[in-house]
Amino acid sequence: MRERYISPSVIRRLPKYHRCLKELENSGIVRVSSDVLAKNLGFTASQVRQDFSCFGEFGQQGYGYNVSSLLAEIAGIIGVDRNHSAVIIGVGNLGRALLNNFKFKNYGFEISAAFDTDENLIGTEIGDVGIHDIERIEEFFQTSPFEVAILCVPKAFVRDVARRVAAIGVLGIWNFTNIDLSLEELGVVVENVHFADSLMTLCYEISKDN
Amino acid sequence: MRERYISPSVIRRLPKYHRCLKELENSGIVRVSSDVLAKNLGFTASQVRQDFSCFGEFGQQGYGYNVSSLLAEIAGIIGVDRNHSAVIIGVGNLGRALLNNFKFKNYGFEISAAFDTDENLIGTEIGDVGIHDIERIEEFFQTSPFEVAILCVPKAFVRDVARRVAAIGVLGIWNFTNIDLSLEELGVVVENVHFADSLMTLCYEISKDN
Repeated sequence: MRERYISPSVIRRLPKYHRCLKELENSGIVRVSSDVLAKNLGFTASQVRQDFSCFGEFGQQGYGYNVSSLLAEIAGIIGVDRNHSAVIIGVGNLGRALLNNFKFKNYGFEISAAFDTDENLIGTEIGDVGIHDIERIEEFFQTSPFEVAILCVPKAFVRDVARRVAAIGVLGIWNFTNIDLSLEELGVVVENVHFADSLMTLCYEISKDN
Repeated sequence: MRERYISPSVIRRLPKYHRCLKELENSGIVRVSSDVLAKNLGFTASQVRQDFSCFGEFGQQGYGYNVSSLLAEIAGIIGVDRNHSAVIIGVGNLGRALLNNFKFKNYGFEISAAFDTDENLIGTEIGDVGIHDIERIEEFFQTSPFEVAILCVPKAFVRDVARRVAAIGVLGIWNFTNIDLSLEELGVVVENVHFADSLMTLCYEISKDN
């Protein structure tokens, strides 16, 4: 299944299916049609059916999809059913917000450590995550390797930190720094989170009729 | 120009063009081809040309686009060249991160106030933004109306706060709460920010080859 080419736009929709199915499952709903899924997500029913057909046969014509097994399938395709380890680099307000509020476990991630340069923070904990000296990240990786680095550092440090974690051998970077990173040549997947793109989309929507 | 139908996927790409052109302008680049824009953004050149053709004629065949005038055009279409007023509701870590670090002015927004329930915060300021009692938001709106409410409140309060600001008459909600809101029936545009979607996309990319 994994050998097939799946277009980036289908991949972008997978998390939305996952979220929607999770909500349906939490509401105790057992079975769902492509029409209902499409309506909840703002897609067309034929798009939903076409997307699912990329991954094999999930449903039966006229009978709908079993919510839990579809959710499990999609979780498996995304990879959130495996354990992934990640660290947070930069424990300012945003790093702290992620540590305190984001349910990493729901998405198959465990935060094994946080890193900062602030001596007042190093050696303390947030939740049960210890904060370490960024200068010792390579050493930490030797004994406790992690797959993903979550970047919440100030702009001036972004490129340097990104190069360091790429050199260590992380698989991916979740980048909150608003500086676009591309580390493909080093074999590192980067997911850039751009708050501004979302604000500008909202801006367009509130401006267009005025 | 605004009367034309523009597909949601084109709208989603506008902020990316804006960001890319802003970076080119900051680097002192005066003129850019659709090929270069496409390469920077990971789109195809024909997609770029097709997107721009939705809004009229921006460039000259074989001559490229003038970076500053294209940026100004796109800023105008998005509406970031106008002044929009917004308030932040919920001054926890995330609200604080936005207040401290996000360059609202770069996107045409001014934060006129923040709101919280915490008596220790009410009456204080972050940057030059005053923190007010959420109970007085209707009163505040009477004298200082705002267009957008940025929701950073805990999950339990999301729906109540959203209904209140919709009733006040805001045009849009920028929703960081990870609870999907739809307030179309009240004429309020909602832009839901889902960190998890982005993490799951990264998860897929790092899982697919393993």
